[in-house]
Amino acid sequence: MRTEVRELKRVRLRKPVLIEGLPGLALVGRLAVGYLVETLGAEKFAELYSPHFPYYVIVDERGRIRLPKGEFYYWRSPDRGPDLMFLIGDSQAQTNRGQYEVASCVLDFARRHGVRTIVTVGGYRTERGGSRVVCASTDEELLRRALEVGAVKSPPGSPIVGIAGLLLGLTAMTDMRAICLLGETRGHLPDPRAAKNVLEVLTGFLGIEVDLSGLEKSIAEARRMEEALVGISMEEIAKRHRRPREEPGRDYIY
Amino acid sequence: MRTEVRELKRVRLRKPVLIEGLPGLALVGRLAVGYLVETLGAEKFAELYSPHFPYYVIVDERGRIRLPKGEFYYWRSPDRGPDLMFLIGDSQAQTNRGQYEVASCVLDFARRHGVRTIVTVGGYRTERGGSRVVCASTDEELLRRALEVGAVKSPPGSPIVGIAGLLLGLTAMTDMRAICLLGETRGHLPDPRAAKNVLEVLTGFLGIEVDLSGLEKSIAEARRMEEALVGISMEEIAKRHRRPREEPGRDYIY
Amino acid sequence: MRTEVRELKRVRLRKPVLIEGLPGLALVGRLAVGYLVETLGAEKFAELYSPHFPYYVIVDERGRIRLPKGEFYYWRSPDRGPDLMFLIGDSQAQTNRGQYEVASCVLDFARRHGVRTIVTVGGYRTERGGSRVVCASTDEELLRRALEVGAVKSPPGSPIVGIAGLLLGLTAMTDMRAICLLGETRGHLPDPRAAKNVLEVLTGFLGIEVDLSGLEKSIAEARRMEEALVGISMEEIAKRHRRPREEPGRDYIY
Amino acid sequence: MRTEVRELKRVRLRKPVLIEGLPGLALVGRLAVGYLVETLGAEKFAELYSPHFPYYVIVDERGRIRLPKGEFYYWRSPDRGPDLMFLIGDSQAQTNRGQYEVASCVLDFARRHGVRTIVTVGGYRTERGGSRVVCASTDEELLRRALEVGAVKSPPGSPIVGIAGLLLGLTAMTDMRAICLLGETRGHLPDPRAAKNVLEVLTGFLGIEVDLSGLEKSIAEARRMEEALVGISMEEIAKRHRRPREEPGRDYIY
Repeated sequence: MRTEVRELKRVRLRKPVLIEGLPGLALVGRLAVGYLVETLGAEKFAELYSPHFPYYVIVDERGRIRLPKGEFYYWRSPDRGPDLMFLIGDSQAQTNRGQYEVASCVLDFARRHGVRTIVTVGGYRTERGGSRVVCASTDEELLRRALEVGAVKSPPGSPIVGIAGLLLGLTAMTDMRAICLLGETRGHLPDPRAAKNVLEVLTGFLGIEVDLSGLEKSIAEARRMEEALVGISMEEIAKRHRRPREEPGRDYIY
Repeated sequence: MRTEVRELKRVRLRKPVLIEGLPGLALVGRLAVGYLVETLGAEKFAELYSPHFPYYVIVDERGRIRLPKGEFYYWRSPDRGPDLMFLIGDSQAQTNRGQYEVASCVLDFARRHGVRTIVTVGGYRTERGGSRVVCASTDEELLRRALEVGAVKSPPGSPIVGIAGLLLGLTAMTDMRAICLLGETRGHLPDPRAAKNVLEVLTGFLGIEVDLSGLEKSIAEARRMEEALVGISMEEIAKRHRRPREEPGRDYIY
Repeated sequence: MRTEVRELKRVRLRKPVLIEGLPGLALVGRLAVGYLVETLGAEKFAELYSPHFPYYVIVDERGRIRLPKGEFYYWRSPDRGPDLMFLIGDSQAQTNRGQYEVASCVLDFARRHGVRTIVTVGGYRTERGGSRVVCASTDEELLRRALEVGAVKSPPGSPIVGIAGLLLGLTAMTDMRAICLLGETRGHLPDPRAAKNVLEVLTGFLGIEVDLSGLEKSIAEARRMEEALVGISMEEIAKRHRRPREEPGRDYIY
Repeated sequence: MRTEVRELKRVRLRKPVLIEGLPGLALVGRLAVGYLVETLGAEKFAELYSPHFPYYVIVDERGRIRLPKGEFYYWRSPDRGPDLMFLIGDSQAQTNRGQYEVASCVLDFARRHGVRTIVTVGGYRTERGGSRVVCASTDEELLRRALEVGAVKSPPGSPIVGIAGLLLGLTAMTDMRAICLLGETRGHLPDPRAAKNVLEVLTGFLGIEVDLSGLEKSIAEARRMEEALVGISMEEIAKRHRRPREEPGRDYIY
């Protein structure tokens, strides 16, 4: 098995923008982009598989199983704006080399569909949380536009780890351009509030209108969970929410 | 050396079902499928080698050594039922990528022998043990049949780690179908009781009759061992039963 | 993506000497060679990318991002001495195999530009610091020349880890020759004094004159920082200055 | 760079037996085979390099450096016995896959030189040391011969880790045959006594006479060192004698 995209459906898109939200810090990207996919009614048209994803499978509600994967969705702009392509999924690659391989594969696929602009979405860890949306880009114009709609510039020197960063780095070597929008978060728990903060910037950036009130329920739940956890150490909390990771020989469910 | 299957003997099988039981959690799969192989008198016809298996060799009773490997056995149904193919062995692959590689290799080999249905067998960790057999599948019909003979559906979201899961995930991308049967176990020690629980479901699932009383001796031994260990922490016990694992530079016996 | 050098500009050099200073122990090599590049006004002409570099990107002062990379600079000798080629950058490769791959790539590139002599620069850890410059080489003559300008011979047996060592090891298998110059350092903090010590030897070795007074400010700052840290354990200090490293699944900023 | 053997000299050997002694547990193999090479005056004729060896280089007494490598020596039997080929060196491969790759490379090289029999030499860890020599083999006859000259059979089940084991496992898949001779050792320190014990068996096995008294000095030194260390925990001792290992990002000497 190689890292590869399997197209489920032939789709031709108009000036598509790719928006990436694979699971990462506090699931900010996954929550934000997953919400867009659902609310806009975007349609799945391709899946990405890789031997660098974790070596487990996931069980759904009906007892059906599937490999970890990335999923590409598309949404056609109703008003001559750019069409949107979304990438969400179960996991990032598990090794250094795998991260480069998956990001390259995503980029190749995007280019084949005429993508010129990529937005990656994720979390930005700060000690005390915060509600800002931090951005960095390969491109002055994208950066300026993000600042106009409320993002703040990432401080210099800070590394952006994982696919949200790598996609930008690899894009910089092509004729495409990319920007990341990172919602501030303490990062211990899934953080739907940070996801909402990013979406406010992202929808402004894309010039689309999306009702974000659907996130309020998740935000309330997350707040209740956090309150229930007062007094429990952050490390313990992080541990409870950690996903199983590749550890050779580690028994989980075989 | 590549990951590859070496056939020891040319065999043509009738509608074979592959049953996988490589060592995993509490050795449930290994114990269950190994018992079937022995009791049915299945015959070995192929071996699987891989540079992703651990870098040690194993000494047998006569001082002979061999590489870690997977072993394929076959058994011809006496009554026009499907023939059975078994996969047991010494180890699973040691890395993320190796797991994908070995599972793909198994699948290719199975397909070449006309396998359409795969059953993977393993353990399912629960805090307090339990005696249920949990199942998940790529296929509605297999799932229904397993539920009919006493299995329960896996809760959604839980990952199934290792080859027992990956084989299902990769099968889902082919025209074959697969199901896993996982015996509940606390997972600290080899658990022949969980193996027997799975076998009760598995034999019903396959429509074969196998005398399972031969497992009682192992079950009694395991119970004695567990009683002897009361008061010793579970972590300590797990440590004592852990197999040597790949650790570059780790001195074992050179 | 493969490990590769991308040339930004066609350059023909005269008997070039390659001087490597990727980040390593106490950043001695990076500080020393970076200072040379800046002070001599060397010009960048190529970049090295690798999937073995860490899977994050770096944000600059303007919010622009880039992949970790190596950078090649050149400087033309004004007086018929050898031209100089410099290699600095963000990181070394993250795995054993990646280290060999990147070092081989550097060597191939150097050879294509007519390099016959390579100098690698780094730190040499000692308990109490020290101000000597330790050298080892693939070549008697280079060694003798380094000793003449103030270096001391490396004690036998001590390993030289990372690209500063590997470049020498791989060079020994070619018709090129190489020497390393390693500044003694305690190694906990970036050490501009060790960098200066190496530069004193290196400029003598190369027969060039460079004003090193520009390093005094960094040295004073480093001394103040060290004084401020008296009483804090060295391990703690090292931890604070450690760069983010590849850890699969580790959340940083996604 | 690939894993490969570089021949320094064309040599044709008569029925050569390969004797492997790369560094492993307590350096038993390295000490034993190194002693044979030296005492018999064997001549080097080939070197093995691999990107799976550690990413450092080694400095010799003259300040010259070299990559970690394996070295092949040969010795011509003066009396129509089999010629001997020796493999010693600096390190074993650092990863699971690397171990398989290096062992396969050694085997290919041995076969090309007409080797039919391989002896691997190493240590066998026991709590209280002991002076026996444990053996295991791919071949009944080799095993019997080793038992005749004083070796004891390895207990079943125990894994033999690293190249001393893998060479046997891979040999079992060819028309060659192999045996390992493992000297009992507590394994914390280099153990020249265990090396001597193995050599007594090995020389009997090969039917050659070698004066082993040259090892007495090392044995006396090791005993003194061990006495000096009484009261220091074994873990501490092991730590002090551990060789630097690949750890991405670990600063040693750059």
